[in-house]
Amino acid sequence: MGKGMDDTFYMQLALDEAWKYQLLTYPNPAVGAVVVQKGAILAVAAHQKAGTSHAEVLALLSTYEILSQTTIDFDRFDAQRAHAFLLSLPKGFFSKCSIYVTLEPCAHSGKTPSCASLLSQLGLKEVIIGTTDPIKGHDNGAQIVAKQGIKVTVGVLEDACKDLIEPFLIWQQRAFVLFKLAQTTNGRIGGGYLSSQESLQHVHRLRGVCDRLLIGGNTVRTDRPTLDCRFTGENAPDIAIYSHEQTFDDTIPLFSVPKREVTITNQLDFLKQPSFVLVEGGEGMLKALADRIDWLLIYQTPKLSTNDLSYNIEMNLAFLHQARMGRDIMIWSRDIGH
Amino acid sequence: MGKGMDDTFYMQLALDEAWKYQLLTYPNPAVGAVVVQKGAILAVAAHQKAGTSHAEVLALLSTYEILSQTTIDFDRFDAQRAHAFLLSLPKGFFSKCSIYVTLEPCAHSGKTPSCASLLSQLGLKEVIIGTTDPIKGHDNGAQIVAKQGIKVTVGVLEDACKDLIEPFLIWQQRAFVLFKLAQTTNGRIGGGYLSSQESLQHVHRLRGVCDRLLIGGNTVRTDRPTLDCRFTGENAPDIAIYSHEQTFDDTIPLFSVPKREVTITNQLDFLKQPSFVLVEGGEGMLKALADRIDWLLIYQTPKLSTNDLSYNIEMNLAFLHQARMGRDIMIWSRDIGH
Repeated sequence: MGKGMDDTFYMQLALDEAWKYQLLTYPNPAVGAVVVQKGAILAVAAHQKAGTSHAEVLALLSTYEILSQTTIDFDRFDAQRAHAFLLSLPKGFFSKCSIYVTLEPCAHSGKTPSCASLLSQLGLKEVIIGTTDPIKGHDNGAQIVAKQGIKVTVGVLEDACKDLIEPFLIWQQRAFVLFKLAQTTNGRIGGGYLSSQESLQHVHRLRGVCDRLLIGGNTVRTDRPTLDCRFTGENAPDIAIYSHEQTFDDTIPLFSVPKREVTITNQLDFLKQPSFVLVEGGEGMLKALADRIDWLLIYQTPKLSTNDLSYNIEMNLAFLHQARMGRDIMIWSRDIGH
Repeated sequence: MGKGMDDTFYMQLALDEAWKYQLLTYPNPAVGAVVVQKGAILAVAAHQKAGTSHAEVLALLSTYEILSQTTIDFDRFDAQRAHAFLLSLPKGFFSKCSIYVTLEPCAHSGKTPSCASLLSQLGLKEVIIGTTDPIKGHDNGAQIVAKQGIKVTVGVLEDACKDLIEPFLIWQQRAFVLFKLAQTTNGRIGGGYLSSQESLQHVHRLRGVCDRLLIGGNTVRTDRPTLDCRFTGENAPDIAIYSHEQTFDDTIPLFSVPKREVTITNQLDFLKQPSFVLVEGGEGMLKALADRIDWLLIYQTPKLSTNDLSYNIEMNLAFLHQARMGRDIMIWSRDIGH
């Protein structure tokens, strides 16, 4: 930095906030927003869950609270209420505010009203967009805003903003495949529960939103897992067991979780379906699926171990984001081949 | 978050900024500061280098720029100039501003004027301190500020703020020992240059500020390193080679770096001296020094490898901070024993 806050700093804050909810917004993209007035940061927010208020709306509600020095008394995640409230404010209330948003504001009304329309009606000073929305029919948010005479800038930290929505673009076409792994800092896996409670909860939240959890037959036989969402209370995911052998001991706990479909399969055609598939496994599954994995999510625990359960594979990654998860570090990366 | 920015959010921003300069401020502590007015963030800054402006001063200069919508035209790192400038502003200029600072503002005048005195004269609204300064004689900054009727709060994210200054507290008493390691994501070391250019530059900056670089005799013989600061242009560090054998091939490049002292030693008594010692090595040095290591700094490269050069040791760590370093992730941790 050296010289204070700039466009990149604001957009990075929006990105960091958005990553807290990466994939948890499924089937929506993760989006972050920051509101700035004369260089000062008034709000930082992110979209948290499909069907609830978008990042721009949450950021503007917080901006209202800062500028009016009051607290809103309704559910800010109720998008209809939030839009109606923002539109009820005196004209020009946000006229000195600029909003940084990682993704082009949505142009269409779905479960929530259009953000592009909202921003244009509120008459903000400037809308700074990380990356445009490449989905057809979503792609005129910037035009809607610009048509009202609001300055629109596109392309601040564009590559990082594109990384953020990569899952969203993939799951329009086919399965987005996230491989989850827990390891020590020196790369050892196994040896019982490695992860912090916060990491385990995060895995359960991912299980709660994914369409299917894919796991190897050997892991099922050896670990006898339950694979539910008991730490977060959501519905347990459907399971695909990838196995050549079709018979399993039906006392393995995962088979008796209510409201769950378990499929035992030796092919992966279901990955052609637009969906979000979470994979939990070790070296065997990593090798079996190497060419199908989009992203790796590693929960790295603060320990060096002499345990010899390591994993051996050649794979080049690109790091996307890192964050603390209790005592662990959570590292998001893209599989870029070998 | 959910409900917008709060004390913890502001202090975390100050912490994240301070970590960018961790150890590079030697012999000063790393310190970060954030200025807030009515909930809006006006400035984020950190102390960058000993002898230059402190975090509070840099944050207040940026605040001046935001509030006046002008740019200062002198060297903001010149502490004398910066203090004089801030004190020349109209009384009450910062009266609506609160400052979040990770460490109690300094009470004494050294190379730079006292920050506690500055803050009290500027009449800020509130000073929120992460942790007090435990060094005797440094410990009445909060009182100096409070005496002027400024509200003082202590203890926001206190543990994290204590972590930040741990090296500073240690190097008052004895050597602070940082063990640097480069590895793949699955814990493989060696196999040539692993690290990104940004990681290598960071290592060279650490070499530029440390008192001594400690390295094992085997590494010297095998790798024939230079161990200078060619990527940053600073003076190369003095070297201690830890070795039972006292003779080395003197054509090994490290011996012919100018203005450098090289010591070959089979004992570690020099670690009793207050100083900052950087260790670069592999499994052997990690095992030899395990009980002497304060922190580990791991540059993790985005690659899974089948290279069998791993490192085997039992060590419990506590993660302190993580950040991107080019394509790598840099992970700071404390050795908490085994």
